Parts: sequence; structure tokens; C-alpha cells
Amino acid sequence: MANEVKLYGVHGSPFVVRVKIALNLKGIKYEFVEEDLSNKSADLLKYNPVYKKVPVLVHNGNPVTESLVIVEYVDDAWKGGAPILPRDHYQKAQARFWAKFVDDKCMPALFKAIGSHGQEQAVAEVDEQLQFLENELKGSKCFGGDNIDLVDISATFIAFWVGAAEEALGIKVLNKDKFPKLAEWSDNFINCQAVKDGLPPRETLVAFFTRRFGKQA
Amino acid sequence: MANEVKLYGVHGSPFVVRVKIALNLKGIKYEFVEEDLSNKSADLLKYNPVYKKVPVLVHNGNPVTESLVIVEYVDDAWKGGAPILPRDHYQKAQARFWAKFVDDKCMPALFKAIGSHGQEQAVAEVDEQLQFLENELKGSKCFGGDNIDLVDISATFIAFWVGAAEEALGIKVLNKDKFPKLAEWSDNFINCQAVKDGLPPRETLVAFFTRRFGKQA
Repeated sequence: MANEVKLYGVHGSPFVVRVKIALNLKGIKYEFVEEDLSNKSADLLKYNPVYKKVPVLVHNGNPVTESLVIVEYVDDAWKGGAPILPRDHYQKAQARFWAKFVDDKCMPALFKAIGSHGQEQAVAEVDEQLQFLENELKGSKCFGGDNIDLVDISATFIAFWVGAAEEALGIKVLNKDKFPKLAEWSDNFINCQAVKDGLPPRETLVAFFTRRFGKQA
Repeated sequence: MANEVKLYGVHGSPFVVRVKIALNLKGIKYEFVEEDLSNKSADLLKYNPVYKKVPVLVHNGNPVTESLVIVEYVDDAWKGGAPILPRDHYQKAQARFWAKFVDDKCMPALFKAIGSHGQEQAVAEVDEQLQFLENELKGSKCFGGDNIDLVDISATFIAFWVGAAEEALGIKVLNKDKFPKLAEWSDNFINCQAVKDGLPPRETLVAFFTRRFGKQA
């Protein structure tokens, strides 16, 4: 069977990069289709009529949407490479829980803290959520133990975007003294080859955050 | 191995009932532990320190939380009975997408429509979301084709709670003329034995909605 894989996305999106990392981990060749979000393509609207958002993975003509759903699909559909979801049922449920927690709790708190230029209460809310993740690391290299798993991938924004936002805006959002394991995890994670190959250049993110949230001259 | 299964919950919660249905579909015997949400048990706080919410499934001492995560866990851990997630990778991703859609889009819209006593704009928002589900039914008995799947289970609130709210408040939220397939699906779904055995008595829901949202005398 032909194995045509296209990823519709934008380079700066942490949700799109989740999918890139999953594809890289599995060694899958794919075509990246850059979307212009101010003028969405007919393909994007056809493939994701509900949310009209990237990422969309199209595998042999079949679209899959929602980044965590796509990552699970990639893990299901390509059995080669290290598993992204633990094979143990209970560990798998735990991974799904924590990935969902990143989306439901950490991402909104981080967006708020960045959008408010590190306002104290917003950063306190980030602290509260990240403490759960810090506790989950338990001294292992990744959330998945020795290998990158769904939780690591879900937390890509924490590992790479947050630092760029801090630099752009001169704020502190992720307290490395309070969360040493998370800080060490971030460094390890972004230096894994499959991750590094999926990340946008850091300076484009710094420029984005400056443009989007920086103080006007 | 001992197979001790406990479900911490309250009878009236659609999220708890999702888990009951999954357990019933698999024919799993379990102990139901009724929680008092105004005075949460030490067990609940220990098992779900992040959200402090029901449902929590405890399987041989291991807690699993978040209703859709639990339903997938039940399907993974007990291979007997009809599968709740399709075995085909692509169909599985689609099921996960639509179940997430029910949680992210339909549930908030329905809560708003009920909470606003069927206010026109809120009902229009419900219509917009339910149209996607109506289109997904494509004439089959269940979202999962002939068998109940994750999407059907996720939509339990639509099948049973919405009608009780309509009766309690004298409002119209689910337009059966506009969504005939969804109306037929609701009737079929709540009459499946595994579902029927998991649902609370309808009159307790009517009483709940009256108490919670009814007009004060």
C-alpha cells in the first residue's frame, strides 16, 4: 500500500510540533504543508470542518485531527520504533491522564501567565499545576521513563516555548529552582534528535512572542 | 490475580455513568462507592489529588481517573465482550476525536443552554454542535456502527440527561425534528441493557434539574 503522509501545519505551533516529534520518533517520511492561518486552504477546511485548525495529519487520504489523537494514531499505525504509549494498560491510562492534564490545566495557565506578562497570580497558578508534573518525573529522564512518551510530547510547549516567551518579554514563568526536575527534563527533551528535528528555530518564537505580547514602543 | 474493581462516584453524574456502561458492556462485577461531593472521602482525595472529582476507577488498588481515560482503560484491560474502541487504527482515531468533541464542544454548549433555560442563542450553539453528530450517525444504530463505542458512551448526557432537563424546566434544547437520527439513536441507546443498567432513575434527574435550575417560587 502506498504510504502517503502529509502534515498540514504551521512551523511555530506547539501542537503541530507534537505531531512532528511523533513522526520523527517513528522514522516516518512526510510532506509538510504550510498553512496560512489568515487564509486557510480549502484542504484544511475540508479535512477539519469542525475546528478548522492545524495540525491535520492525512494518511493515504484519511485525515486525523487533534494533536494528541494524531500522536496516538501515529503510534497505533506504525509499530516500528519505540512505543509512544506504554504497552502496559495501567501505564497507558496514566500517560493519557497526564497528557490531558497538560492540555486542560497547564496550557491555559501558561498562556495566561505569558499573556499577562508574568502577573504574580497567574504565575502562582502555573506553579500549582507544574508541581504535579514535577512530582511525576520521579528522577527519570522522561515522563515515559527512559523513552519519550505521550506526556513528554504533550509538554513540548513547556520545554521550549516557555523559555522563548520569558526571553522575549523579560519575565519569569517557569521557576527552575522550584522545579529542578522539570528544568532538567526540558534540557534533555529538546536535545533528543527526534525533538530537535521537529522544533522551530528558537529566535522565530522569541520574535513571535515579542510581536504578539511585547510592550508597544 | 484478584480482580478487585471499585468505582467511586455519584449516581446522577453522566461522567460516572459512562464508566458504569463500559463496565456493564464488559460484564465486570464492581463495587460502587457512593461519594458525598460536599464532604469528599479521604479515598477520593488520595486517588484523584489533581481534580478531586468522580469518577475514579480503582482496579486492584490502582486508581484511574477522567471518564474517557477510564473507558479506554476498561477496554484495554478486559478483552472480553465487544470492543469499545474500534480495532481499526483509523476508526479508533475517529472515535477518540468525536468523544473529545462531545466533551469539548457539546457538553459546554448543553450546560449553557440548560443553565440559561433554553435561551435562543445558547440553543443555536447546541444546534451547531449537534449537527456534526447528526451527520456522523449516517443511518447506523450507534456511532460505532452496530455496537456501542466510545462516542456513544461519551454522548450519554445527550441521550438521557437532556430530556430530563427539558422536562424539569419546560424548555426545548434538543430539536428532534432537526436531528431525527440523534433522537432515534438516543432511544436505541438508552434501551440497550448495559446502558439501562447504568442509568439513574429519570425522576431523580428531573428533580435535580428542577432543584438546580428551576425558577424559584
